[in-house]
Amino acid sequence: MPVNITPPLPEQLLPIKGVSLGIAAAGIKKSNRQDLLVIVLDEGAQVAGVFTQNRFCAAPVIVAKEHLSHSDSKFSIRALVINTGNANAGTGEQGIACARSTCFELARLLGCNVRQVLPFSTGVIMEPLPLEKIVAGLPIALANLKSDNWFAAAQAIMTTDIVPKAVSKQIALNGTTVTITGIAKGSGMIHPNMATMLGYVVTDAAVSQPLLQQMVRYAADSSFNRITVDGDTSTNDAFILIATGRAGHAEITEKRSAEFNLLQQAVTEVAVQLAQAIVRDGEGATKFITVRVENGKTQNECAKAAYAIAHSPLVKTAFFASDPNLGRILAAIGYAGIDDLDVSKLQLYLDDVLVAENGGRAQSYLEQDGQRVMQQAEIVVRVVLNRGHESTTVWTCDFSYDYVKINASYRS
Amino acid sequence: MPVNITPPLPEQLLPIKGVSLGIAAAGIKKSNRQDLLVIVLDEGAQVAGVFTQNRFCAAPVIVAKEHLSHSDSKFSIRALVINTGNANAGTGEQGIACARSTCFELARLLGCNVRQVLPFSTGVIMEPLPLEKIVAGLPIALANLKSDNWFAAAQAIMTTDIVPKAVSKQIALNGTTVTITGIAKGSGMIHPNMATMLGYVVTDAAVSQPLLQQMVRYAADSSFNRITVDGDTSTNDAFILIATGRAGHAEITEKRSAEFNLLQQAVTEVAVQLAQAIVRDGEGATKFITVRVENGKTQNECAKAAYAIAHSPLVKTAFFASDPNLGRILAAIGYAGIDDLDVSKLQLYLDDVLVAENGGRAQSYLEQDGQRVMQQAEIVVRVVLNRGHESTTVWTCDFSYDYVKINASYRS
Repeated sequence: MPVNITPPLPEQLLPIKGVSLGIAAAGIKKSNRQDLLVIVLDEGAQVAGVFTQNRFCAAPVIVAKEHLSHSDSKFSIRALVINTGNANAGTGEQGIACARSTCFELARLLGCNVRQVLPFSTGVIMEPLPLEKIVAGLPIALANLKSDNWFAAAQAIMTTDIVPKAVSKQIALNGTTVTITGIAKGSGMIHPNMATMLGYVVTDAAVSQPLLQQMVRYAADSSFNRITVDGDTSTNDAFILIATGRAGHAEITEKRSAEFNLLQQAVTEVAVQLAQAIVRDGEGATKFITVRVENGKTQNECAKAAYAIAHSPLVKTAFFASDPNLGRILAAIGYAGIDDLDVSKLQLYLDDVLVAENGGRAQSYLEQDGQRVMQQAEIVVRVVLNRGHESTTVWTCDFSYDYVKINASYRS
Repeated sequence: MPVNITPPLPEQLLPIKGVSLGIAAAGIKKSNRQDLLVIVLDEGAQVAGVFTQNRFCAAPVIVAKEHLSHSDSKFSIRALVINTGNANAGTGEQGIACARSTCFELARLLGCNVRQVLPFSTGVIMEPLPLEKIVAGLPIALANLKSDNWFAAAQAIMTTDIVPKAVSKQIALNGTTVTITGIAKGSGMIHPNMATMLGYVVTDAAVSQPLLQQMVRYAADSSFNRITVDGDTSTNDAFILIATGRAGHAEITEKRSAEFNLLQQAVTEVAVQLAQAIVRDGEGATKFITVRVENGKTQNECAKAAYAIAHSPLVKTAFFASDPNLGRILAAIGYAGIDDLDVSKLQLYLDDVLVAENGGRAQSYLEQDGQRVMQQAEIVVRVVLNRGHESTTVWTCDFSYDYVKINASYRS
């Protein structure tokens, strides 16, 4: 029961010059399931990425970070290989060997160097990766490489996702049309620091690698690092931004340029749409919640309050029940860890309804107004701290019977 | 479906010299429910307490802390008044006035000063306290004061608790028998820093007030601050330790004495039993989980790892499903925030079964062994960090369909 989200139409997803995608059913976990995606890049593409902060990083994360850090103009990244059904995480040295072997085999087929390939995996953790199945699937994926395979690619990387997540956008940079297409997967275990989430955004714009790295960090911090389903962070997460440089404009090399800002804004909008789609498809989600904390002293304290609300199982079950249980939201702000917070100074709104101020229920508040907002599928919780000028927004979903059901039976 | 817990028998709960308890059905939320408890102390009792760290503290917490800090040998605490059905939290100035009026009325009936009374409330938050019902109930409670009312008292303070929580213990101090009896309530919203939890431990030992304050802090840190059901902390929590001094031994005034240590150990054991009973009665709990983190550099990093495991909804749903999903436990350790943790160095055990080491599944591990442990009602998760000499233990429960059900319908 995803919240207000429909799959994109295949024809809405625009090809990117310099990129082709191939898919195979490799039988990694289930047979007859498209579970292997290869993204092939023309030479000279710039690639930047951010990865999970979890101390247990999966083998492909270790290898992808290593290959990315060694890529340069002579050995640019030529391919990404992504499998579902097995995360190759918690698999020790053997897992790293499997990730390297996957890259080696794809590099051999493409005639490039092993470090020009980035590996990604998602699915069950602590199980050995069935390397031979992936190796057997690679030629099949390469045999059906197409530039308009984006919809099938979005489907191929799904795990517990119900809806494929993909979006395209075009902007004009100095008269040149630039296209951006992105896909993502993820539904449970979503948290800041990129939890069990894979995102790939590709543009035909031309951007220098250092600026692309800044852009991917900025876009992640405004999107994938601002969503949370259950507070868990994962072992495999990655957000990759690729610029093929084929749009035909001069390479962007200056951060203070209008072109950089326009492109960064457009890339971030694509990333926000993908990230919100992940929350809308959150495991067992029935409501989409925007938590906005305003007028804090620092971004950090705003984020503390927002995440305390967004992570509270009590708040999330109250949203599920359409119960305007203000006390649970206020209690969450109270234990968020903002040491000198004067709770009598803040205001709490549900959408446009002022529900609490002066340390208690607002004089003007009627339960029926709160009730009306809580019954909506989309709810904005707004906290005004009244102690500074910073603000932040976090997106989350409610916590339903189905969350427990999905996560109690995930491996069976 | 509480886990391995049976109510105490009334005759197992020992009276404490200098203490009597009275109960009334005041109709605060439901009629015909014993919802008001008065504990009356003879003059000269020492009282110490620790309270919630939530920035939203309920009105009675504010008033109880104030009265406790002003008590002295001339104005010792003479009574505690505890109501269920309404937490008097998020009620602003009006709520504080109600808490003060409750104390004033009880003080009037007992012929003592208002600041010799400590108020406590638990139940729904953000609703005005029905003061007139409490005031009407106080004479009824005083009319049935008894020294052997402990079982009824444990029942009177319950909210979503299924089982009343009470325990007694006797020790010998230098040949004098000293008795300790405690009661507690709490089942959801349990977390370190005393979340929606009320605990009262009373002894007839004689202890100076400064030492009693140290003892209550120590006991709380080893018991109520080491349990967690859902990670939320509450507005009303308090743990109170009372020493009536009627056992007949010389007052304990020296922290390094054998008497202090024996008494502190016994009080802590009572507090641990009450705290564990709260977890066993956790909302929707089907399993009792002990998370022990050993050989860390600091207590703090051990606690971070233990709470990351104990708070993870994914880990908790896996326990509910009896699924030995090691990856979720390892991922939780990975995001616990121990910056320089080398995950390849740690060992993870389920009871006596070594399940993970060297960054992955242990060579010797068989899924059937993990499965056997996970099917038990009591499970010990043991993490050996192998980087220091500190350790800590946290108690929690699993996360079931019923947790969502109870919390989605709490107010209806």
